[in-house]
Amino acid sequence: MQLYSYFRSSAAYRVRIALNLKGLSYEYLPVHMLKDGGQQLTPEYRKVNPTALVPTLVDGDAVIGQSLAIIEYLDETHPEPPLLPADALGRARVRDLALGIACDTHPLNNLRVLKYLKHTLGVDEDAKNAWYRHWVQQGLGALEAQLAASSATGRFCHGDTPTIADLCLVPQVFNAQRFGCDLSAMPNVLRIDAACRELPAFDAAAPGKQPDAE
Amino acid sequence: MQLYSYFRSSAAYRVRIALNLKGLSYEYLPVHMLKDGGQQLTPEYRKVNPTALVPTLVDGDAVIGQSLAIIEYLDETHPEPPLLPADALGRARVRDLALGIACDTHPLNNLRVLKYLKHTLGVDEDAKNAWYRHWVQQGLGALEAQLAASSATGRFCHGDTPTIADLCLVPQVFNAQRFGCDLSAMPNVLRIDAACRELPAFDAAAPGKQPDAE
Repeated sequence: MQLYSYFRSSAAYRVRIALNLKGLSYEYLPVHMLKDGGQQLTPEYRKVNPTALVPTLVDGDAVIGQSLAIIEYLDETHPEPPLLPADALGRARVRDLALGIACDTHPLNNLRVLKYLKHTLGVDEDAKNAWYRHWVQQGLGALEAQLAASSATGRFCHGDTPTIADLCLVPQVFNAQRFGCDLSAMPNVLRIDAACRELPAFDAAAPGKQPDAE
Repeated sequence: MQLYSYFRSSAAYRVRIALNLKGLSYEYLPVHMLKDGGQQLTPEYRKVNPTALVPTLVDGDAVIGQSLAIIEYLDETHPEPPLLPADALGRARVRDLALGIACDTHPLNNLRVLKYLKHTLGVDEDAKNAWYRHWVQQGLGALEAQLAASSATGRFCHGDTPTIADLCLVPQVFNAQRFGCDLSAMPNVLRIDAACRELPAFDAAAPGKQPDAE
């Protein structure tokens, strides 16, 4: 398998954790999202992935973008250890938590959006950072409320083994802390982030441990 | 089952199509996203769904937010007709297409983001509409390229029966047209949208046919 990745990409980080948890080795193909005006925007990369977004997983004939589509694919083709609960209700809860980050938090703060705010709308640095923190507060704040409200929350987001929800939580917390977001009112989020980062699969997937890290 | 819905919510529209395709009846609980400063923001609704987003499906003990989590749940608990292909690669392709809309297109243009642009960043109407069209162009333009490039594309996004990808495509096209986006360079997107809207399940889910339509 090959993974087109950028060390700081939150979506690629999710997939790296999944690959590590499944014990799958892969070739790391760096796509530098800042160099050359963004290597993900080149015609060569668009041939691989027309959305011009990172990551892309290549597994034989399978060429898959979208981190959650990749992770569900890995979970179906390499079932152990499972990244979703066995019951439909548990699966729904985990997907709900994961999508709250993947749809309603992260996309508002990714690189192309911050660039549009700065270069097209002329938003200054302070307002850009306030935008970033606003959506993190909305997204992780809601996640905290969901975690606090449910007896299904355990050592991890759902029970005592990592699921797709945790694979989304850790990269989002990493990003939030990089942008100086105050997460002190989110004890469950911080506790689960720490529990995850103790696991070698999460640790080895961290941005600073990637071959293209700066 | 009960569905908290708003007639114009693109995410609720996806779920309405799924419920109709599965032949499931449900109670429609309107959440007016503009009245009362946004009924989704009230303490009552937050008790149901702490993310303060629409839709929410209630199915006995199951209370699920996030449209794609709801649709996967419905597909697992009511398998006929299936909304995902049987093979892992096909499932990955459909989820990839669906998430391209659900993560990278729609969340940038939903109501709370447009309100932030206008009220917090002071963006004028023209710039707000340009923002809207920019992300539709990026998202649906990429979808068009993906559909055009794959022999798996059929009458619908994947083969000749509707999948989760089509459930995301139709509401996104509806929104894009409401905002005057030019989709003329997207023949596959328009063709599939038209094919879907011929089906009674899609037609009955349209915003104009809902009890809270204005």
